[in-house]
Amino acid sequence: MLSYKEIQEAHDRIRPTIHRTPVLKNSSLNELSGAELYFKCENFQKAGSFKIRGATNTVLQLTQKELDRGVATASSGNHGAALSMAVSNRGGNTTVVMPNNTPKMKVDNVERNGGKIVWCKPVQESREKVLSEIIQKTGAILVHPYNDERIIAGQGTAAKELLEDYPELQMVVSPVSGGGLLSGTLCSAKEMKPGILVYGAEPAEADDAYRSLHSGEIQANETTNTICDGLRAQIGTITFPIIQEKVDGIITVTEQEIIHSMRLIWERMKIIVEPSSAITLSAILKRKAMFQGKKVGLILSGGNVDLGELPF
Amino acid sequence: MLSYKEIQEAHDRIRPTIHRTPVLKNSSLNELSGAELYFKCENFQKAGSFKIRGATNTVLQLTQKELDRGVATASSGNHGAALSMAVSNRGGNTTVVMPNNTPKMKVDNVERNGGKIVWCKPVQESREKVLSEIIQKTGAILVHPYNDERIIAGQGTAAKELLEDYPELQMVVSPVSGGGLLSGTLCSAKEMKPGILVYGAEPAEADDAYRSLHSGEIQANETTNTICDGLRAQIGTITFPIIQEKVDGIITVTEQEIIHSMRLIWERMKIIVEPSSAITLSAILKRKAMFQGKKVGLILSGGNVDLGELPF
Repeated sequence: MLSYKEIQEAHDRIRPTIHRTPVLKNSSLNELSGAELYFKCENFQKAGSFKIRGATNTVLQLTQKELDRGVATASSGNHGAALSMAVSNRGGNTTVVMPNNTPKMKVDNVERNGGKIVWCKPVQESREKVLSEIIQKTGAILVHPYNDERIIAGQGTAAKELLEDYPELQMVVSPVSGGGLLSGTLCSAKEMKPGILVYGAEPAEADDAYRSLHSGEIQANETTNTICDGLRAQIGTITFPIIQEKVDGIITVTEQEIIHSMRLIWERMKIIVEPSSAITLSAILKRKAMFQGKKVGLILSGGNVDLGELPF
Repeated sequence: MLSYKEIQEAHDRIRPTIHRTPVLKNSSLNELSGAELYFKCENFQKAGSFKIRGATNTVLQLTQKELDRGVATASSGNHGAALSMAVSNRGGNTTVVMPNNTPKMKVDNVERNGGKIVWCKPVQESREKVLSEIIQKTGAILVHPYNDERIIAGQGTAAKELLEDYPELQMVVSPVSGGGLLSGTLCSAKEMKPGILVYGAEPAEADDAYRSLHSGEIQANETTNTICDGLRAQIGTITFPIIQEKVDGIITVTEQEIIHSMRLIWERMKIIVEPSSAITLSAILKRKAMFQGKKVGLILSGGNVDLGELPF
């Protein structure tokens, strides 16, 4: 299992190319939630999400020979853009398999960072089929969006920075989808501060992590009918055991709750976050009693939103 | 005319109750503009705009006897909310005369801060008539949104902070409406750094400051048909002479240019700014050659936007 030392090494490796993102507070949301909230703003990160952390950590470990073969991945957007940026920084080429219902903004973000897009249908099988064809045909190196220890180590650096800045935090809430961010957060936070409580926030409409945790075995998503376009992936075989061992709980929330907290963050904090980020606040507002009076870190994972398609 | 000493005193007076807002940079917008941009984020300020600076500076100078009479103003929203907050902080009451076409979000912001709203028609005469009736009837103290040296001194503290943080700036761009922010910015910047260039950015659809500057006399707005609901006021008799003496130019821009730069700031910087703030970037993009290679400060005046009524 991933060690904290690997997260420290990842941080040293990626520090020169990523932002150390700010942590914001907001008195109006503190009042509303009854907790003291610390928002780690990965929406301000390079390429607009935390994904650049894991992508950079992985790409910097590829040999020149591997890089020359090209890099490929499947991504709903943020990992694709981040990987394209990390690979472009080393002068390589990236192919990103994307569902044909991806928000235009995320498509543009991949292209702006030098990635080449190949379309697939918005279902897991099509994604995997198209990606494996590309890899077979071109010999490209796969960089998985989450089921890879190098990725998890990179994502864990966000919580590491948060706890370096605010060691007094008592709880952390992270979104969960494939589990890269949550498992990395767990490996950082539980090592840096034994006894800290870490929760995952997940859409009820794509609740595979919640059900997997409760059944003890990886479950498939029954629907992915959520506004959180970054939270539709399937929990991974490497991420799940970490989550299973360390997490204090997964809180599922409705679509209405996600939209409500997204609007609250936009209006009160004047920052743009994706639905997939706002879900952390939804979880706290849903379980107010649990977070009452506590110092809570929230990982705002990204800010890539299609402004022409807002839910309010 | 307002002295820099009064701005320093205003800063000392208001410092405990306002935020020292951050200054953000963005490599993607630097590339697009060809300049090095420093965004002073008053959208993150208390009550969502720079207006709390002037309002607080004024309210803290009222005697208890004056405060007991109640405070009144006319405002399209941000000054009204800021004044309500500053007066509530001292335990007093505020009446705000607002045009009946004010965005709901700005109405809520006044009420959330304890202000009482009285409606008027969205024309200057109605505004003045309703306000003067209130003052006659109740004996309330008027705190004008801009045509008052205490207000101007307060607004000047935003540019003061910007230049304290980045003394290397060569140019500053501020929105201009009634002229409180621009005249305060001029009094700070020109004193702190002789030779610095300061420009106003104004909607072509409400270009009274531009025409006043060119004719040498205060001109009325011929239309106020602009998306910038914070920039529809008439330049003031106290603000105009300062602007006339010190400003290096006023740049007018179209509605399309404002909407374009607002979207750019939202998408690239992941922060929420009003159209009245985004206009500063519009001015720079319109006059690229003038700003080429220069270190330019932009005052993002506020972030109070009705999310249900976006122009994109």
